[in-house]
Amino acid sequence: MKIGAIPDIVVSRLPQYLQALNLMKLEGKQTTSSQELGERLGFSAAQVRKDLSQFGEFGKQGTGYSISYLSKQLQSILNIDRIWDIVLVGAGDLGHAIANYQGFTNRGFRIALILDNDPQKIGDKIGQLEIQDFALARELIRKAGIEIAMLTVPASVAQTVAEEVVQAGIKAILNYAPTPLKLPPNILVQYLDPLIQLQHMTYYLAK
Amino acid sequence: MKIGAIPDIVVSRLPQYLQALNLMKLEGKQTTSSQELGERLGFSAAQVRKDLSQFGEFGKQGTGYSISYLSKQLQSILNIDRIWDIVLVGAGDLGHAIANYQGFTNRGFRIALILDNDPQKIGDKIGQLEIQDFALARELIRKAGIEIAMLTVPASVAQTVAEEVVQAGIKAILNYAPTPLKLPPNILVQYLDPLIQLQHMTYYLAK
Repeated sequence: MKIGAIPDIVVSRLPQYLQALNLMKLEGKQTTSSQELGERLGFSAAQVRKDLSQFGEFGKQGTGYSISYLSKQLQSILNIDRIWDIVLVGAGDLGHAIANYQGFTNRGFRIALILDNDPQKIGDKIGQLEIQDFALARELIRKAGIEIAMLTVPASVAQTVAEEVVQAGIKAILNYAPTPLKLPPNILVQYLDPLIQLQHMTYYLAK
Repeated sequence: MKIGAIPDIVVSRLPQYLQALNLMKLEGKQTTSSQELGERLGFSAAQVRKDLSQFGEFGKQGTGYSISYLSKQLQSILNIDRIWDIVLVGAGDLGHAIANYQGFTNRGFRIALILDNDPQKIGDKIGQLEIQDFALARELIRKAGIEIAMLTVPASVAQTVAEEVVQAGIKAILNYAPTPLKLPPNILVQYLDPLIQLQHMTYYLAK
């Protein structure tokens, strides 16, 4: 991930703060504190204050944070005070699970295009969306002006697929395939690989 | 994540090094350098050297690292020089995708138990494994001596499910449900939430 003026590790915690705030909202809460936010996420109150202070003054000494105000500010900082269209490449089990996931829209995202190269799948629908031919990727992605791709393809083809969608104008890739991608440095890449997370935990488990 | 003598952020990079090494092995390579490892993962060579040096001396000045030796050392450090059994809770699309994923076994893990509370699903098979009743969670998890759970359940029930599996002896949870879990501090929790990762990228996208 690119590093700007603000450390990337701090940026990576903002979506977690936002998620915790959304839950508090659902619970009917209106204000919170750095203490409470930290407890929900396993960070110290000092850490929460320090992270948020990098972006501005969002709370008042003694009264804490307004949940709706802080949420709106974080949404604006994360550029999700709009809806981003996503192209999903790979319509297997995992692709279906993601395409059917209801949580995207009210959190800033919408699956707008689903691509696969399997003739058996092309033309099928997932929800309202028809699975389209990956051979048309450049044309379809460009026409829709999509900048974000989620890859749920086999590891063996992930690199080729990633290069193709980058050619089509994709600037950020969330990669579910268990393989690192080698792409130009201006392309943002994040990985969702359960093995990486599991192995991270076993380091501590056996101690 | 618990913090020990070695910073957790360093620990979190070890599975990524291991993944890159495994790919190099598949490509037929026998040795690598901190430069090459870094390039594959987007870290500097200095970062790679510094990270690995926290755990020992694995390479030789000038000749670099033996890929198979370094892999074995990392597997041992991450405690995956054995197979860990996993209980998967939630047999929806995502649960099916994970249960059918072939990449676990040769990387230290095996789905050993699948649970759901839907009478329509209980008794069905995914691959060789029968979906069993979540009502029997404590008994089945204890009997199998399983310490790791993957949760692919709706967010609304994730907390209850997590508490139940912790009662059964689970010590580490990989949570796919888009909600933070509040659990005793000795329980390891990692999250796989695409929204968190997408929002992390959009911070940089619109700049």
